[in-house]
Amino acid sequence: MTTPEHSTPRDRRTCERLDAEDPLRGFKDEFILPPDTIYLDGNSLGARTKGAAERAQEVIADERGAGLIRSWNTAGWFDLPATLGEKVAGIVGGGSGSTVVTDTTSINLFKAASAALKMQAADAPDRRVILTQQENFPSDIYMLQGLAEQLGGGYEVRLVDDAEVTAGFPSTMTDEVALVVLTHVNYRTGRLFDMTTTTSAVHDGGAMVIWDLCHSAGALEIDLAGSGADMAIGCTYKFLNGGPGSPAFIWVCEALQNRFTQPLSGWWGHAKPFEMSPDYAPAEGIRRYLTGTQGVISMSVAELGLDIANRVDMAAVRRKSLQLSDFFIELVESRLAEHPVELVTPREHSHRGSQVSITHPEGFAIMSALIERGIIGDYREPEVLRFGLTPLYIGFTDVWDTVEALRDILDNRIWDAPAHKVRGAVT
Amino acid sequence: MTTPEHSTPRDRRTCERLDAEDPLRGFKDEFILPPDTIYLDGNSLGARTKGAAERAQEVIADERGAGLIRSWNTAGWFDLPATLGEKVAGIVGGGSGSTVVTDTTSINLFKAASAALKMQAADAPDRRVILTQQENFPSDIYMLQGLAEQLGGGYEVRLVDDAEVTAGFPSTMTDEVALVVLTHVNYRTGRLFDMTTTTSAVHDGGAMVIWDLCHSAGALEIDLAGSGADMAIGCTYKFLNGGPGSPAFIWVCEALQNRFTQPLSGWWGHAKPFEMSPDYAPAEGIRRYLTGTQGVISMSVAELGLDIANRVDMAAVRRKSLQLSDFFIELVESRLAEHPVELVTPREHSHRGSQVSITHPEGFAIMSALIERGIIGDYREPEVLRFGLTPLYIGFTDVWDTVEALRDILDNRIWDAPAHKVRGAVT
Repeated sequence: MTTPEHSTPRDRRTCERLDAEDPLRGFKDEFILPPDTIYLDGNSLGARTKGAAERAQEVIADERGAGLIRSWNTAGWFDLPATLGEKVAGIVGGGSGSTVVTDTTSINLFKAASAALKMQAADAPDRRVILTQQENFPSDIYMLQGLAEQLGGGYEVRLVDDAEVTAGFPSTMTDEVALVVLTHVNYRTGRLFDMTTTTSAVHDGGAMVIWDLCHSAGALEIDLAGSGADMAIGCTYKFLNGGPGSPAFIWVCEALQNRFTQPLSGWWGHAKPFEMSPDYAPAEGIRRYLTGTQGVISMSVAELGLDIANRVDMAAVRRKSLQLSDFFIELVESRLAEHPVELVTPREHSHRGSQVSITHPEGFAIMSALIERGIIGDYREPEVLRFGLTPLYIGFTDVWDTVEALRDILDNRIWDAPAHKVRGAVT
Repeated sequence: MTTPEHSTPRDRRTCERLDAEDPLRGFKDEFILPPDTIYLDGNSLGARTKGAAERAQEVIADERGAGLIRSWNTAGWFDLPATLGEKVAGIVGGGSGSTVVTDTTSINLFKAASAALKMQAADAPDRRVILTQQENFPSDIYMLQGLAEQLGGGYEVRLVDDAEVTAGFPSTMTDEVALVVLTHVNYRTGRLFDMTTTTSAVHDGGAMVIWDLCHSAGALEIDLAGSGADMAIGCTYKFLNGGPGSPAFIWVCEALQNRFTQPLSGWWGHAKPFEMSPDYAPAEGIRRYLTGTQGVISMSVAELGLDIANRVDMAAVRRKSLQLSDFFIELVESRLAEHPVELVTPREHSHRGSQVSITHPEGFAIMSALIERGIIGDYREPEVLRFGLTPLYIGFTDVWDTVEALRDILDNRIWDAPAHKVRGAVT
């Protein structure tokens, strides 16, 4: 599993040296983390960006307080979805004018899927099946179920397993399939799907594809426009460090942007929102995927995380992420070999996102014990301990210390029955 | 128009005395407004609440920064929609367990209208017409048009004028009408509609009603549960002072809450969101109207505005609001009599919200000149100058000074061609 550039440290001192030599080490100063904490849940909620409190203060005191209503113009509030959208596009290879930041991932999926099904209804009206991964994040599945039920007329959601996706849908891609909605990285296992080959398989089958980038945007190199994908959605609060519940994004490939409208056709997506006409007319381009007034404070704070991701070399992030997860896996296998721990995350780099998931029958209690020690990962049913590896603020020493803590907890059975399960907006 | 308790001041000194005796005067200290500013646009974007910056700081530093992912539980983030919903319910008479704060007004309208049409489709499938005011806020109309187009099958939006609504729909309430969507206060003119009698007229016609409370929540007494209304939506950033683009609310009367689901069926509305089941099952009650992860900073700051509105006696707010608007109208008529100014807002208290709108052929330029002097109202096509009267921080002296400034500008024609029109998330 190791390569010359992935030589695995054998002791903590070597980890310290690797961290000191890490070309990304400076980015840790962009975040404020509590002392004595190893934060391995940035794949669920990113860390606090250094300027967040100051930016919120500025929005509240200067823009809201002093500028008042005028700030919709003078502080650029009305254009924030497009301003931030350009920044997301820079991170995921979307191309200029292709992306807006708005609403939630779930709502953006509803817009994208509605528009895609409308396109298919015009071109291929007999295609009424939506495929999605059984292990897609549940909210995506629920939104598709809600849409199918609302549309009626035989629309239906079918679930496929990850192997079927990786194999290019050999048994599920029929001529009934209109749309395939895929998470780029499985939130539980960390499995990564190849965007380009999977998109080709979907298109070869005559269907359209929407990618959910919640667990990959900001964690690895993505070339959305180059992949041939039709649409994409994602959040900004995981690897993009936008802040709790910060707004989501939606991307539509240029050729499709003006073909159809989406049904959540609010005034922010109108061609001339301030003329107050009683008839909807969609804006040209990606702005037609906007709906209503957005939360300015959350949006403004989210911008800081996007700025950091735009400054970093995403190839370097990916390289370090794989080094960290290789190291994590190797330590788990060498140091925890006597315990009933199983690796869930794929070993192949090409199938691995930026997390390591392992199982243990007492997974929940063990994660609680780790959190007691200031090592924060999370737990997913059934039995899965998830460790997110965010290369901007996690180093080799953190991985070493985490597995050593796990070893101590397992060797000495230092865990209690849990008081409550760790939940959250955690996907 | 005046009554003994509405005696109109004849000079600024009397205004000062009335402000000093105002039982609501203490609430002005709950807000931070810039010096030398009269803010008459609180019907569009409420003022900055005193604790907003501190609250944002607390969320970012303590909850996000130190609590990290744990704050979804420990800081109550996950329950914010219901926590804030209870506070909105207290302001609009919704009753406990009836309201959640989430998403935007436009999106909540889509949910409510979708659910209402589904109920009607089950009970009265031939009813496929949605009525709404021609002068409802345009985004509401656009959302209904988007929904009707998505549903197909003959669903259609018909626009009615305000007189038709006030008269109880004598010529438009046919047995085709499934749903009526009404703004409680016309955003442009300030006309108020009677919720109870209008709801009765809709129900007598066999239709359901959704009220948009964007321009009334926090400005006057509302008894949603007592009115017999079916559903309601509204924003928190106008008279509720939640902050720019703060999240909206949705209310569903208790009897209807569990009858149907809405199509934006994301995981926050799931009965067991953390079990990660691949099948959607709606939560009991109003929580099924939730969709996805909400912006925690904007939501937390919004709570401050709701807390103020919950502490105030809404009857006293309404009383002062009418005193202020009576006074404003009387001054306009007595002091601006020689100018081509026309009153747009209804004279009858029962038909008046909490704003005064007047027209002048040079309305836009005049509003710009007022804003130059620190008197901030706004402008709506065509020719309308809008002045929002928020009794918590606007007094009689403010009204006096505003009309005197208007008189000076009009008498001396002190206005320029405008550089740009004042726009914004302004409804």
